[in-house]
This record gives sequence, C-alpha cells and structure tokens, in this order.
Amino acid sequence: MSFQPTPEDKFSFGLWTVGWRGNDPFGDATRPVLDPVESVNRLAELGAWGVTFHDDDLIPFGASATERDGHIKRFRQALDATGVVVPMVTTNLFTHPVFKDGGFTSNDREVRRFALRKVLRNIDLAAELGAQTFVAWGGREGAESGGAKDVRSALDRFKEGFDLLADYVVSKGYDLRFAIEPKPNEPRGDILLPTVGHALAFIERLERPELFGVNPEVGHEQMAGLNFPHGIAQALWADKLFHIDLNGQTGIKYDQDLRFGAGDLRSAFWLVDLLENAGYAGPRHFDFKPPRTEDIDGVWASAAGCMRNYLILKERAAAFRADPAVQEALRAARVDELARPTLAEGEGFEQLLADTSAFEEFDADAAAARGMAFEALDQLAMDHLLGVRG
Amino acid sequence: MSFQPTPEDKFSFGLWTVGWRGNDPFGDATRPVLDPVESVNRLAELGAWGVTFHDDDLIPFGASATERDGHIKRFRQALDATGVVVPMVTTNLFTHPVFKDGGFTSNDREVRRFALRKVLRNIDLAAELGAQTFVAWGGREGAESGGAKDVRSALDRFKEGFDLLADYVVSKGYDLRFAIEPKPNEPRGDILLPTVGHALAFIERLERPELFGVNPEVGHEQMAGLNFPHGIAQALWADKLFHIDLNGQTGIKYDQDLRFGAGDLRSAFWLVDLLENAGYAGPRHFDFKPPRTEDIDGVWASAAGCMRNYLILKERAAAFRADPAVQEALRAARVDELARPTLAEGEGFEQLLADTSAFEEFDADAAAARGMAFEALDQLAMDHLLGVRG
Amino acid sequence: MSFQPTPEDKFSFGLWTVGWRGNDPFGDATRPVLDPVESVNRLAELGAWGVTFHDDDLIPFGASATERDGHIKRFRQALDATGVVVPMVTTNLFTHPVFKDGGFTSNDREVRRFALRKVLRNIDLAAELGAQTFVAWGGREGAESGGAKDVRSALDRFKEGFDLLADYVVSKGYDLRFAIEPKPNEPRGDILLPTVGHALAFIERLERPELFGVNPEVGHEQMAGLNFPHGIAQALWADKLFHIDLNGQTGIKYDQDLRFGAGDLRSAFWLVDLLENAGYAGPRHFDFKPPRTEDIDGVWASAAGCMRNYLILKERAAAFRADPAVQEALRAARVDELARPTLAEGEGFEQLLADTSAFEEFDADAAAARGMAFEALDQLAMDHLLGVRG
Amino acid sequence: MSFQPTPEDKFSFGLWTVGWRGNDPFGDATRPVLDPVESVNRLAELGAWGVTFHDDDLIPFGASATERDGHIKRFRQALDATGVVVPMVTTNLFTHPVFKDGGFTSNDREVRRFALRKVLRNIDLAAELGAQTFVAWGGREGAESGGAKDVRSALDRFKEGFDLLADYVVSKGYDLRFAIEPKPNEPRGDILLPTVGHALAFIERLERPELFGVNPEVGHEQMAGLNFPHGIAQALWADKLFHIDLNGQTGIKYDQDLRFGAGDLRSAFWLVDLLENAGYAGPRHFDFKPPRTEDIDGVWASAAGCMRNYLILKERAAAFRADPAVQEALRAARVDELARPTLAEGEGFEQLLADTSAFEEFDADAAAARGMAFEALDQLAMDHLLGVRG
Repeated sequence: MSFQPTPEDKFSFGLWTVGWRGNDPFGDATRPVLDPVESVNRLAELGAWGVTFHDDDLIPFGASATERDGHIKRFRQALDATGVVVPMVTTNLFTHPVFKDGGFTSNDREVRRFALRKVLRNIDLAAELGAQTFVAWGGREGAESGGAKDVRSALDRFKEGFDLLADYVVSKGYDLRFAIEPKPNEPRGDILLPTVGHALAFIERLERPELFGVNPEVGHEQMAGLNFPHGIAQALWADKLFHIDLNGQTGIKYDQDLRFGAGDLRSAFWLVDLLENAGYAGPRHFDFKPPRTEDIDGVWASAAGCMRNYLILKERAAAFRADPAVQEALRAARVDELARPTLAEGEGFEQLLADTSAFEEFDADAAAARGMAFEALDQLAMDHLLGVRG
Repeated sequence: MSFQPTPEDKFSFGLWTVGWRGNDPFGDATRPVLDPVESVNRLAELGAWGVTFHDDDLIPFGASATERDGHIKRFRQALDATGVVVPMVTTNLFTHPVFKDGGFTSNDREVRRFALRKVLRNIDLAAELGAQTFVAWGGREGAESGGAKDVRSALDRFKEGFDLLADYVVSKGYDLRFAIEPKPNEPRGDILLPTVGHALAFIERLERPELFGVNPEVGHEQMAGLNFPHGIAQALWADKLFHIDLNGQTGIKYDQDLRFGAGDLRSAFWLVDLLENAGYAGPRHFDFKPPRTEDIDGVWASAAGCMRNYLILKERAAAFRADPAVQEALRAARVDELARPTLAEGEGFEQLLADTSAFEEFDADAAAARGMAFEALDQLAMDHLLGVRG
Repeated sequence: MSFQPTPEDKFSFGLWTVGWRGNDPFGDATRPVLDPVESVNRLAELGAWGVTFHDDDLIPFGASATERDGHIKRFRQALDATGVVVPMVTTNLFTHPVFKDGGFTSNDREVRRFALRKVLRNIDLAAELGAQTFVAWGGREGAESGGAKDVRSALDRFKEGFDLLADYVVSKGYDLRFAIEPKPNEPRGDILLPTVGHALAFIERLERPELFGVNPEVGHEQMAGLNFPHGIAQALWADKLFHIDLNGQTGIKYDQDLRFGAGDLRSAFWLVDLLENAGYAGPRHFDFKPPRTEDIDGVWASAAGCMRNYLILKERAAAFRADPAVQEALRAARVDELARPTLAEGEGFEQLLADTSAFEEFDADAAAARGMAFEALDQLAMDHLLGVRG
Repeated sequence: MSFQPTPEDKFSFGLWTVGWRGNDPFGDATRPVLDPVESVNRLAELGAWGVTFHDDDLIPFGASATERDGHIKRFRQALDATGVVVPMVTTNLFTHPVFKDGGFTSNDREVRRFALRKVLRNIDLAAELGAQTFVAWGGREGAESGGAKDVRSALDRFKEGFDLLADYVVSKGYDLRFAIEPKPNEPRGDILLPTVGHALAFIERLERPELFGVNPEVGHEQMAGLNFPHGIAQALWADKLFHIDLNGQTGIKYDQDLRFGAGDLRSAFWLVDLLENAGYAGPRHFDFKPPRTEDIDGVWASAAGCMRNYLILKERAAAFRADPAVQEALRAARVDELARPTLAEGEGFEQLLADTSAFEEFDADAAAARGMAFEALDQLAMDHLLGVRG
C-alpha cells in the first residue's frame, strides 16, 4: 500500500501546527514566520483536506479592519485555488497577556466581556468560511493556587459564556456546533474541565446541550495518565464526539504535541480502530508541533508522517478485524457476550431475583476458573500492528 | 483547641480500613483479623459517628443464611450499644476471583447476573441498617488490553445494571441514593469511569439520574494528577456530591490510602475549606489503610490522626475566611468579581455587541497590566495553614 | 520469519512470573499453585533458555532442611532433563511480614541480621546451581513517612550489607556478581535507590564496586516517567549492565508487569535495538505477570508472547540499521558527528580558546538555522517498526 | 517569631527568577523587563544574601565587549552598595536557537565547541565575582526520538566537556566547583542525567570527580515522582550536595517553579529538617518563577514568601526535633537502631554465620508482630508542622 492521503481521508491541520516557530519556556523561536497561504498550499500538496485556525493565527491580534479583510481575502484565495476546506475554527484566548487569568472565567469581568466579544466576532468568520465546528479550548481557565479561583463561580461564568454563544449561533441560524477541548494542566497549574469526562458532564448543565460536544486531544488525556481510546469511547457513547485532535505524547509530562503515531503507538492503533469502526465521520485533525530541532523540511516531513501513520494504522486495524483468527479470539474472550444485555428480554428485578441459577445455584468458583483469553487476543493485535501475520 | 472529634463532626470509617490486614502485591498480611464489633467499639471511643462496610467485610463470601444472620445480629448489637450509625453500605465486586473481569461489565454474562444479585441482596441490608447512601466502586470494571473490552458495550451494561438497581430501590420505597466512586486504574490497567468527571457525565445517561451522585476519593483523583478540590467543586456545582472518601496520596503512583492529612496537605486544606463552606452536609468518610508497618496500636493512632487532621484544617480554614486581611486580599484578587455575572441584568448578545467598551474601546494592554495579586493571597493561606498569623 | 525462540536467544523467566497466582491488593488468587518443575518443562518447550527464582519460589519460607533438599533435588532433575540453566538467583526479602520495614535497612537490627543470613544461604544455592548473577531488589527498603527512615543511616546499612555479601563471595571463590534492581515506589511509598542512576551512584561507594552492577526493569523506570533505553545506555556506558528485566508498563501508575512488548512499544523497539547493538551478552530475562484474567493457557500464551515480541523487534531493529536510507538519515541528523570528539586530537582548553572560529567568528544564527532532520529519521524508524518498508 | 530573613540565612535568588517576564508556551510576556540592578536592590531590602545569574541574564547574547563591561560594572556597583554576594553563576546553553539540540551534547560539533567557549568565558566572570559554585544545567541535552541521540556517545561528549572545564579551573587556580543540575524532561522529551542519581553516577566517571557535585531542584525530582528529601539525603551521603534549588511543584506535570512552600508542603518540611540537621552549609537558593498572573508587586511578594516559608519550616523542624515526645516516638520507631551497624564491632560473615540467634533460632513471626510505630511519629510531625503542639 502507498499510504498516500487523499481528501477523502478528511485530514486537517491547524495553521498553528506547521506554523509553530519553536518558542518554548526555555528557548526562542527556531523557525521563521510561515505564511498561512504557504501552509495551505503545502498541506494541499501533501494530501490534506482541511485547515483550521485560531483568529490570531490568520489575523494578528489588534489588526485593523482593513488589514483583517486583507488577511482573510488572501487566505480564501488559497483555499479556493487548492480546494482545501475550513472544517473548524477556534479562538485564541490565551496568548495575549490580557488573558493571563483566563477568558470566560477570568476574575476580571472586563476581560470576560472582551473574551466573549472576541469569540463572537470569530464565530462570524467561522460561519463565513463554512466551518461546522467551533472549538473552545479554555487553556487559561484555571489557577495555580487554591484561593485564587472559586471553581463553582468559575463554572457559572463558563456556562454563562457558552449559553450566550449558543444563543448567538441559533439566532444567526449558523450551522455550527461547539466542541469543548479539555486539558488537565499547562499553561495553568490546574485547568477547569480537565478531562473528557469533566467536559461531558459540564455540557449537560448548559441551556442548549445539543449544540455542545467535545474535542479531545490525545496528549491532553494522556497527561492525566488516562486511556485515550476509553475516553473517546465514552464520548461516542454519549454521542458527543464532535471533533478530535490527533497527536502524540510520551506519558505524564509537559504537553509534547508530537506527530501522530509518535508516543504511545499501541494506544494510537486502538484509537484508529475505534474511530474507523464506530462511525465517526468528522475530521481527522492533527494538532501537533513539529519539534523545534526541525527546519521547514522537517516540518513538512512531520506533517506527512501524521497522515502516513494514521493510514498505516487504519490498514492494520482493518486487517485485524477481518482476520478469522481474531474473530475466534474475540469470541474466546467473550467480547461478543458483553454486547448482549445482562437481562433477558423483558426481564426486570423480580425475574432476576427469581432466577436461582443467577445466585443461589451459581457456582462462583467454577465461573472464576474460566480464563478470559485476553493475552492471546492481545498478541494477535500486536501481530497485526507489527504486520507479522499473513 | 482540643481537636477532639464528636459525633456532630459526622466522621465515619469503613470496616475495611482499620480492618485491613496489610496484604499487598508483594507481601502477606502483617496484622490479625479484626472483629467488626471491636472496630465499632474502638471507633466509637475515638469519637467517630459512623461505620460503613462492604457485604464481605461483615459476612464472609459464601456464608450460609444462618451465619449471615449471626454476623448481622452481633454487629447491630454493637451499633446499638455505642450509638454508632451506618450511613453508607457498599458491595464487594472485586475480591473474589469470579470478578476478575468485573461485575456489571464482565464479559461473562453469568458473572454480571450474579453481581447484580449480590448488590440487590446488599441493598436490602443497607436499607435495613438505615443507610442513606449506597456506594458503587467498579474497581474491576476495566481492562489491561485494547481488544478485551468494547467500552461502549461496557457502558451499556453499566447503565443497564444501575437502571435496574434504581428501579429496585424505587419499587421498594427505600430512602437510598447511589454514589458512584471513580478511579483511574488499579487493580485494572484502566478502569471505566476513571474520574469524577466521567462518572458525572455517565450519570446523566441513566434513566433515573436523580438517584445517582458521586463518591470521590482524594487519592483516586490524585492518581490522575487532578486537583481534588476542583473535582469536588464541579460535583457540588452539579449537585452531585452524595458522599466523599477522605485519605492521603503522595502523587501519581499506586493507590496509597494514607491517613487524611498525609500526602498533599495544602490540597487537604482547600478541600476542608470547600466542604465546610459549600454546605456539604454528608458524612466525612475516611477510606484509608493504616500502613502495614503498624500493629493494632498504630491502626488506632492512624484512625485518630484522620479525624484530628480534619479538625485542625477546619479550624485553620475558618480562621482564614474570618481574617480581614484575607478578605481584603480576596478582593484584591477579584475573587468577588468572578461571582458577578459577566452580563448585566437582562443583557444578551445584542447588548454585548453594542457595548463598545467591551471590545472596540477596550484597552487590552492596560487590562493585561493589572496584577491578579494571587501570590499575596496564597501566602496568607499558607500562614493560616501553618498557624503563624495572629 | 518464524520468530521461534531458541536457547541461543538466552531468554529466561522467573519462576514467580508464570507462577504468579493473581493475588493483588484488591483480589484473591485466580490461579492454582504452579509446580516449579512444570514451569521448567513448559518454558523449555516454548524455547526458553533459563529459569530464575527467589529462594521462596522454590522452597517455602520456613521449610525444614530435608524439605529444602527435596525441593532442590526435584528442580535440578527438571533442569537436567530439559537443559534449562539457572543464570540468576535472587532472595525474597519482602513477602514475609518480618520484612515489613525492609531487609538490609529495616529499623529493626535483628531483622537486618536475619535478612543477611537469608541472603548468604541463598548465595550458596545460587553458586551451586551455576548462577553468575545474584539480583538484589530491595523492594521493602523505604518509607511512607518522613521521620520513619533516616536515609543516610539506611544507606550506611545498605552498604554494610552489600560489602558483607561481596566479602563472602570473594572468600568463597564464587563466580557471582550482584545486580541491584532499582524501583521508585510500591510496595513502599518511596523506595531507596529509586532509579538506575541512584543505584549506579550507590555502587561507587561500596568497597568492591567491581562486583556490583544493575538489573534495571522496564516498568520500574517507566513508573518514574524515565526513558528506559536512556537509562540502559547510561548503565552500559558505566559498564554496569549485569542483567535486565524485560516487561511492559503503560505509564506512571502501579507496577503492571505486562508481557514484553505490551505497554510502550516504541520504547521496546529502541531498547532491543540498543541491547542488540551495544554488545550486551547477558540474559534477556522476562519479569512479568500474566494478568489474573488468564487461566494457565493464558499464562503460556503470555510467556510465549514475551519472546515472540522480542524476536520481532530484533528483526525490525536489524532491518532499520541495515537500510541505506536510514544510514543516510542518520548522517543527515549528524548522529555520526556526535561520535566524534568535540576537541581535536591533543586539543586542550588553550587550543580551543585560540580557535576564533569556535567563538569570535562563529555565526550562531547560521548554525541555528540548520535543521536536525530528526523527524524524517524517526518516521523511518516507525516504518521499520511497523514493517512497511521494502 | 518574625520570620524575617537576614544574610546569615544565606538566601539567594537567580536574576532570572524575579526577572521572569511570564512568557510560556502558550502566552506572551506579561511583565516588563526588570533591570538586574533593581533586582539586587530589592532582594537586598527583602533580606536576601546573594544573587546568581546565567551569563545572558546579565549580558544579552551577542553583546559587544564594551557593552558587556558596562553591564558588569553596573552590576558590581549594585553588589557593592548592597553587600549582596554572588555565590553561584551558571551559563545559558538553552535559549538561543543554536542550542536547539543541546550544548555539550549537540549532534553538531561546531555547536559543542561554541558551547564550551561560552562556558569558559563565563567561568572567568564567575571567578571574578567570587562565586564558589558553577552550576551546569543541561536542559537541551536530550532528545524527543530514539534514533536522534546515541546516548552513550552523548555521555562521552558530556564527560569530555566537563573534563575540559575542570582542567581549566585547576589550571587557572580558581576556587570553583561545579554542580550539575538534573532534570527528567522539558524542554526536551527526555533529558540526559534525568535525576540526582544519574548525575551522581555520571560524576564518578569524570577525570576530576572531586570538583563535581549536584544542584538538585525540588520540582525537577518531583517531576519524576521522586521523594526530594530522599534524593538530597543520598547526595549528602555521597558528599556531593554542592548547591540546591528550592521551589515548589504540584506533582508530575510541566515544570512549575512555584515559590518555595507551595506544592508539596510536607516534603518541604522534611527537606528543611534535613538541610538544617545534616550540616549543609551552602546557599539556600530559590529557583522559582512568580506566576505570570502577578505584576511586579506580586513578584516581590512571591520572593518574600520563599524566604518566609523556609524560616517557618526551619522553626517547626527545630521544635519537632527538640520535643521529648518526638524523641520518644523516634525511639519507639527504632530510628536510632538504624544508626547502629548491623554487624557487631569486628564481626564478619563467619561470626554472623555462627550466630544461631540470627537465623536458626530467629522467630520471624514474633519479630514480624512488632509494630513500627511510624504513624504516631508522623502525626507528631504533622502537629509540629501545623503548629498545634505546646
């Protein structure tokens, strides 16, 4: 197989990914500014389908209206010329020092109002460019010390902000849904809505929960040591996987944003297996940072690697599921049995209580002795991942 | 102050805590079996208000009906004699090898049915003993390998089980609510509903969500590197803090179950501050394990330390909140301003968009220059925690 | 390729690995006792070369001299019949409650003396069985609280113990070296000599450092978030890699002891690449635990998987190193340049200071602009790991 | 007590700490440039004894010789005027993009030579200003991917560099020793010499090990989940604690550099207890970053808090050690017994083998039953830390 991406694969990249200049807490930028138009052109050549951006990636903070229009016009021309689409837009509420204590949950009310206005303006642009998803990463919504933030008040303000945005989108008739992106920490000591679970729970308290889903990022959940495919499965189960950020991370440490496939490879395999088999139809969006050791050639090599690795894993997951030996191993592991309801058709607690085979006559020791056959199954998965079967 | 606990403090302990014999993955038990009646008596002497238990803590797995009645009778006599109450009961779905792949989500359907029956039986006992909360920790609901567990199916089965329990409780007219206890891993490689957030989100998909809340445990959230008071605040915000497990943990590692106060002391301070000020009226339940280096005297010293540390922190938190300098520092940090809605009374997006002071005339650089004064506030908190003010 | 192990591969297993019965902190054993003779026979059939053991794995703690001899005799017969060797022996100083505060560093001096005697006795057995390596894992040498252990005193006692053992081995003329096994925590809150680095440093303060090296375990270093191949490289650099424990771990959490290959697969690839190319000639020892979900068939499947995965990765690493495109990519990444000394032949600081090209005329910006080409190299490694090249 | 620092406390601060402008991976600077002279003046007022710096903190990278002299002159005048000393100097080998792959271990040999020259120049300045310690943090010496760095070659180059520096210092007759500062990761995916242990071990392979010690930083070890006081104890045991970086960190995550006392307070207590009682006579150096939420007032509040917290903990540790109840608890925990050699005076393995009380007649069960009394001791420590005793 060639593992050559095509637009049908729905691969998208943030302008801020290939455009990252390499500044980190201990070092200055190692790469020059990358023109968004150049990014669109090169990503198109590599086989990408879409690009995404924060407002400030395209239009510098504080630009005049004329400058803003100029930036947007050039960008649209590049999109039109290449056929690249804009499936998602997001807002930068973290770079400018005004957001040092957050956007929607800053203790400073003026900052909160400004943040809402910044997002509203960007929603118009998102709609104008045809985006269907608006991502909200509240990277600065958090605290380093316990007294600084009343979390219950902060959640009230978070809800207030999102409810307003939903009102706006409905009122405008935009075909746009929001995807909240959780992260446990960095750049704040602790960030609000730290995991997929917390974001899913929060959404249920909004006025229009149907407009909100999640945008989980591989590395963010792994920074909390959580199993990423498990989190994605719960999001899918709740019908809330609106978007996804693919990248790599080597365990619990600072946010690495490695290219997809780097980091936990086995987890990446199970993730692709899940996305491809669970009917997820959204973008495969890469939110990574080419290491600052790389020059611009390394940037494109890294971007190409993200897509290539996804396609390799997709092929391997398909072969895994198609292998009769795997299907037999899945049955031996009783994975199919978990799909069967525990209760019989129409059975309630009365019937269950009346079934002596379920308790009074149940032989716990005999049941305990039955092996689950998970290791044999997992070795088959390893064989497929490594391409050593048939 | 004496920091001497009284029943008004609502301190409770699991029989399995002081009764832990010290067996761990690398070592055999270091302490003899502790009679539940002895635990009730000693805990009462120490000032505890309640005791809690798993079915198997009180009645050995597989005991006959007669043996069972005998165990319960002796236990009730001790409760009556001491005035100790049973505010919570829980079920052991993890020790017996039959649960090696879980209870409600085992791939083995017979095991799932047995698990439901085991819980139903124990609910009757909980109601009989007057418990208001039934805790559900699904410690074995999870997996070590990616193919072994279809998480979406598992969540279906989890929901099926809890829906049945809720039907039963409603049908029986029991005054009993369920508290789901999350944990990220151990004893499974990854456990379903790994954090407070995931459990809160799951509850919203149950048929009777009003009967379900969470039972967060200090160490469990900290095993994922999460800020425990933040998680508790979100649970309170969602009106779902039905119960709480207090203990200590020194960071991301195996589950330590240290006595309350050991581990992250500053986090414990903010936790007590939150519980005492947010109107939480439930039990202060200690779920800890006296280290296996201890003999029985060390067990009781450790239990007494849990309560003592809570009371010390409670005093310190009260002094912190009462200090005028703190109140001034909170204002300087604009914590009060976060409690004010971002929007004015009756304001919607139209009004916000019309407010040029919020965007067009907003001076971001000037706002950015305003310090948040969090460090001075946090140092005051430190001074109060350490008892060096006034 | 068949990936069928042979004795030339030098694969060895601990009796305690396949013999693990599945008891964990929250659950009872799920598998029956496994006869050491059965383990030898089955491991031989699977292609293993050696078996290793703790004294107590072979001879129950407290067995009489006669019983002891009987156990040893049966075991030797199995070794002779199968040709399986005993390359390493180790001592259990952690299971019996007497070791609850450690062996060589227990606060209880009598326990320390008993521990030394237990090890001395086992050294005789190790020598008798022809082992060349004696592993020392001080799993209980540590503490949960700060005042309980004076670490400097503990290190004195640790040194005292090891110096005595070295005296003994030299005096007896045994051809036996010691390999210290580090671990950061579990079963103690913090264990002394927590990483490969700490153990290497400690060895330098012993009286006979030449007799001591390290026995790093994959999961133990990964429990501290450390890069395992990096630690192995430093041990090799110090000429101290005397033995190695291969297994799998999914990040910073409890000790998982997954089969080799499970867990961080990319790290496993780089580890095998290093071991095979750095001249490590010792055993490839698997120290893993078949998950307690497995019956005995799963145990052997898991053991076979350890060896199979090693052989697959060995083939992949060899192909990676042999690929001309990889060699070119290594040059582009200037990996060869790192092997060249920084100073010229005979150059000292005077000559360096006199070289204006090194500083006064050095164009830092131009040098900074040169890309390191690491991403292209890493993608080639990924391609080889996944078997998608040629 | 006033907890007012004086120069006798030997508190020192890096210019880069109070001078940090708040730029992080996701945000721009929030504070203006701080003049080093202003830092010296304000730190002197607050009671600090010393200041430290990287070359580039004082003299911008690439400054001309004249500019350089001007910066140094102004700085010396401030030192003279205030009496503030310069106990330590260090070199910046991480900010400029030329160091993107490291300094001494960059794959680029020209960069390595430039790095050596940059350090040699700065050593002259350190000696000129009277510093006794030269810290070396190799923050960029590491890798993100496995093939990019041959760690054994890198350690050769690291050694080559340090050997050259030692030659230079000896040749010049400078009274200067080197302190290597370990860190596990960030800004590289994995950094060489990741922990105190790895650095201690590395030093033993240098040509002049006596000139090298370590400069452990609280947060760096805690980023690997390690017990900081344990690491310091091993460094003291090896006679290698040449310097120390005090700050705060809340567990395994990005490098937080909180003020001392924030983060793990109980660990900070045991650290101060150890430093004050183990004869450490070097600087108490704060390497922290005032959160970017703070304006300049917050910066000084944060710096003052570092010193205040140290002094509070010092008072509490002294009271703990002086309390007769603590001394009794230490004896009950047999901490004194650990200070006694395991062997009797003159005893070797022959005598130990002849002592039947140590093995043949040793009653392991009886010894196992003795409690260690660690919980009572630890609660006393908690009481002292919180100031609730006497």
